[in-house]
Amino acid sequence: MKQLILIRHGESEWNKLNLFTGWTDVDLTEFGRKEAYEAGKLLKKEGYKPEMCYTSYLKRAVRTLNQVLEAMDMDYLPVEKSWRLNEKSYGAIQGLNKAETAKKYGDEQVLLWRRSFDVQPPALDLHDERSPRMDARYAEMSDSEIPLTESLKDTIARLMPYYKDVIMKSFDRYNTVMVVAHGNSLRGIVKELRGMSNDEIIKFNIPTAVPYIFEFDDQMKLQKEFFLGDQDEIRRKMESVANQASKK
Amino acid sequence: MKQLILIRHGESEWNKLNLFTGWTDVDLTEFGRKEAYEAGKLLKKEGYKPEMCYTSYLKRAVRTLNQVLEAMDMDYLPVEKSWRLNEKSYGAIQGLNKAETAKKYGDEQVLLWRRSFDVQPPALDLHDERSPRMDARYAEMSDSEIPLTESLKDTIARLMPYYKDVIMKSFDRYNTVMVVAHGNSLRGIVKELRGMSNDEIIKFNIPTAVPYIFEFDDQMKLQKEFFLGDQDEIRRKMESVANQASKK
Repeated sequence: MKQLILIRHGESEWNKLNLFTGWTDVDLTEFGRKEAYEAGKLLKKEGYKPEMCYTSYLKRAVRTLNQVLEAMDMDYLPVEKSWRLNEKSYGAIQGLNKAETAKKYGDEQVLLWRRSFDVQPPALDLHDERSPRMDARYAEMSDSEIPLTESLKDTIARLMPYYKDVIMKSFDRYNTVMVVAHGNSLRGIVKELRGMSNDEIIKFNIPTAVPYIFEFDDQMKLQKEFFLGDQDEIRRKMESVANQASKK
Repeated sequence: MKQLILIRHGESEWNKLNLFTGWTDVDLTEFGRKEAYEAGKLLKKEGYKPEMCYTSYLKRAVRTLNQVLEAMDMDYLPVEKSWRLNEKSYGAIQGLNKAETAKKYGDEQVLLWRRSFDVQPPALDLHDERSPRMDARYAEMSDSEIPLTESLKDTIARLMPYYKDVIMKSFDRYNTVMVVAHGNSLRGIVKELRGMSNDEIIKFNIPTAVPYIFEFDDQMKLQKEFFLGDQDEIRRKMESVANQASKK
């Protein structure tokens, strides 16, 4: 049997402040770190033994993974980081308050940026101080790879080569692989694995810091998928993510 | 200019308890985490920009590196872990109190195990519960690679291929490389870089959580080396390491 463990990072500072985050590199809150540590404790208790880990270039994901590995006592595991696992870019509205953005552009427009499959928020200028081009960690990306804004469709498009050629390919060597990333990059993986439509994936909310387990047979045919943990608690978490999205 | 930054992990639980640690996977103390974080803050303040990091399979080193990267706000850096950077194996005396060991085997014998270049402590049995063979993380090592005990000479011998073929080779691609490891694995690197004799390296004490900087020209010729930070404080730290070694 092969297993893929997906984990969305814990609560971040900007989740709490209700700002558009995207590629902005904000930290976890104390609660977010604890959530992550608890996820690791649960994985350990249930006997999961990942052999390879993937995460994004954003500290809220890396630090979630660090907490999970500490709790599992598996700090020695190999970790590979990639910008392709980063959150969807919110372009020029990154750093803006969600309520103020709705006031400025109208509720309907903001809803489209957040909840459509292929509508992009306004783009950053390549040399805006918020542009990835201005950040040394992305120096190896070509200008055409740098996302100045993204729809969910765009996010999935830049994620897919990494998902297929690196993450899924690693099952040639490993039985259990763990990915710690973001709401929208993980949506891309879930959509692909479950064959969901564009509409279905947009409505699907991944709870923070809950291990989402996919089990495959040795031919990598999906056998089952489930969230690990107390199911009532997980339902509450999914609702809270959905409500946060509609909160002003 | 090329730069190599060496950092010895912060204070560990067993440093405090005065036990032989070696390959035993013990955690940092709270003080050890703080020391590590401070080292990261200092590197950031002084403008160091590592591009690649190496560490061991032992959590006291991995967690030191995590603290350094958090403090530098560079969690996204690539990290490679290797058992070849692990601490010297103390074999069958791992987990024993240093004072009790001296009582049982005699002061002189224990001094030889700790302070000679090529005398090994008694070996573990391959199937001792403390043997790396019994630990899943070392599954890829052959029996002949598994150290059941080591002299400093042995530690340096298994470190060297990794130091030469991986760490130093990575300067083909990077200008600044950081290695977070252990007192004796770092001794191997320092001995090689400074051309020290066996006697000299044994007497050389590397302070915990102090960045040790080596600067090279573009032909990788060593230009200078120094410990970063307050030199009085560093001297105190080096003396404390030396005293700890003689403490019963």
